[in-house]
Amino acid sequence: MSGFAEAEYRARLARAQARMAEAGLGALLLTTEPEFRYFSGFLTRFWESPSREWYLVIPASGDPVAVIPAIGAALMAGTWVADIRTWPAPAGDGVPLLAEALRETGGPVGVPSGPESHLRMPLGDFARLKESAGLDITDDRGLVAALRAVKSDAEIDRIAHACAVAGRAFGRVSEITGPGVPLDAVFRDFQRLLLEEGADFVPYLAGGAGPEGYADVISPAGAQPLTPGDVLMLDTGAVCDGYFCDFDRNFAIARAGDAQRAAHARLIEATQAGLAAARPGARACDVWRAMADIVGADDGRLGHGVGMQLTEGLSLRAGDESVLLPGMVITLEPVIATAPGRIMVHEEVIAITGDAPRALSPLAGPDLPVIGG
Amino acid sequence: MSGFAEAEYRARLARAQARMAEAGLGALLLTTEPEFRYFSGFLTRFWESPSREWYLVIPASGDPVAVIPAIGAALMAGTWVADIRTWPAPAGDGVPLLAEALRETGGPVGVPSGPESHLRMPLGDFARLKESAGLDITDDRGLVAALRAVKSDAEIDRIAHACAVAGRAFGRVSEITGPGVPLDAVFRDFQRLLLEEGADFVPYLAGGAGPEGYADVISPAGAQPLTPGDVLMLDTGAVCDGYFCDFDRNFAIARAGDAQRAAHARLIEATQAGLAAARPGARACDVWRAMADIVGADDGRLGHGVGMQLTEGLSLRAGDESVLLPGMVITLEPVIATAPGRIMVHEEVIAITGDAPRALSPLAGPDLPVIGG
Repeated sequence: MSGFAEAEYRARLARAQARMAEAGLGALLLTTEPEFRYFSGFLTRFWESPSREWYLVIPASGDPVAVIPAIGAALMAGTWVADIRTWPAPAGDGVPLLAEALRETGGPVGVPSGPESHLRMPLGDFARLKESAGLDITDDRGLVAALRAVKSDAEIDRIAHACAVAGRAFGRVSEITGPGVPLDAVFRDFQRLLLEEGADFVPYLAGGAGPEGYADVISPAGAQPLTPGDVLMLDTGAVCDGYFCDFDRNFAIARAGDAQRAAHARLIEATQAGLAAARPGARACDVWRAMADIVGADDGRLGHGVGMQLTEGLSLRAGDESVLLPGMVITLEPVIATAPGRIMVHEEVIAITGDAPRALSPLAGPDLPVIGG
Repeated sequence: MSGFAEAEYRARLARAQARMAEAGLGALLLTTEPEFRYFSGFLTRFWESPSREWYLVIPASGDPVAVIPAIGAALMAGTWVADIRTWPAPAGDGVPLLAEALRETGGPVGVPSGPESHLRMPLGDFARLKESAGLDITDDRGLVAALRAVKSDAEIDRIAHACAVAGRAFGRVSEITGPGVPLDAVFRDFQRLLLEEGADFVPYLAGGAGPEGYADVISPAGAQPLTPGDVLMLDTGAVCDGYFCDFDRNFAIARAGDAQRAAHARLIEATQAGLAAARPGARACDVWRAMADIVGADDGRLGHGVGMQLTEGLSLRAGDESVLLPGMVITLEPVIATAPGRIMVHEEVIAITGDAPRALSPLAGPDLPVIGG
């Protein structure tokens, strides 16, 4: 499994152009990795280097134009994109080439400008582009985000594949942890397990441990050893074929206390309520409410979209009225307060279908697994 | 080794404020991970999620102000930054809070806008910020990039540590490869070796293989097996304590042909010439010239800065007249054409000192190592 058939990209392009016509846009200008890859299939870890900009122009009709550094020409030639224009970055200046491509398509030029978006080009270059292109450069009206939120079957298969890889790695956590093992060693070894099970790379790993849950889910691991009675959580965003999984598992170290067991069971109950609520036509806030009622949450985010990014699109939160559509892939991520400043979190990945959602991650049961008991 | 003493951050702040005074800036606004971390020490892989913006305001005098989502408050409280203002992202709107912080410091507000920079906030929010702050928001004049280009001893130690980890992993490549092993399996297993040797995570891995070198250094690995006579290259950006290494190694599979051996020896000769040229006061283009003469290059980039990002700062290329300063950390990355459309690349990491540079990666010798012979 790698890349998609040209028909997949043609379908994405057709959907985009239909919406561009409605929005009155002459072109889209895309600069970030997932937006660029969504329409081109250009997959490389080279985006890690900020030295070069990569531009994709989606015209109102006709095929995409890639305006890229020469170093990417060979790889780009293997995609379905035929119109590839290069400059010798970082030595040269790509702005004139990009301005020319945009002048050919005409404006207004939509640039993703809404929630979660950013522009991956220097602001100075963007100012020069606006001056030299002589076109109206404006918001894309959320068009690209809306397209990406609804996945094709082929995309869902890739997310399911990443979830299966992580599921197998979670099944082996007892190999790498137990009383006395430092948390940072667990983080390292869990990434190793993910790779062994087939992840291409592991951009995201979070977690925490403590007798009454953990303080947050974003801190790096320290060297403190796990002790009997700790609850350990590992949350991974592993990537296969350019698509993320994003789910977690909790484990009790050596023994599970009653409060931990009860909290875990409650989290699973909330997840099941989220599953029951996640029907097409329901709003993100409805799914949030179903879970929040069970874990006693007043606010916060209890899930989100996932795909080419670890998190993308809607949020399961009180104020998000996004309507669920078949093809959306979201996480259910209930959080429960276990002590002052302490929480436990559970997370699964599901795809919205015409009926009951499809679980992409292997749904955990209510019993908190015990390791090294 | 993790984080830095407060004195390190205070020194960075003092250097920044001295330059801000020269440039007439009232504040800096920082939005990207390395810029934010450079002044705050805030280290998390949570930046992988685009759902939330993170803002750091550096005033012309006084201490930094962090304007961040509430989910980061606990982790931020462990840094030296005392003034932490939060909003409930992604539910709320951080722009008013940020505008208020900037109004307190006053303008003009410098935002990194030059080469390699970008703004990590939605363009729509940036437009609202500019309206509501009522301040002149302008380029930072490259000030932050210039500060970050010259590393402290503590930073160089961290880069050296990451290089040592990768050096040990490269020393074990014979464990994971040989004739018949698919390239994608090598990529997976090499990441595993890096983790085993102490990498916190592996954001970047590239490579290639073929009898006459490889077509490029940015393509993902395919499933084709290595065959006797191939030359295999692995290039890694592994991270320890938030700092990258970036270097590569070449290996001959089963046997090394004369042309491969000669090309490799030439690459090492070029690296040595780069080392000899990399003295304080020399320009980036001088070091490029020293290597380009040996590998017969007319253009292209033969090295770059490295630090909190895989690549950052100057480029070793014909037109880059940046002057090398003690404390800069750069890679020497000569490329040699081996056949039409085929290349070999070698890369090492060095720190510029008052005298001869300090090799941070374990410098490779001229002999191309043979694996599985």
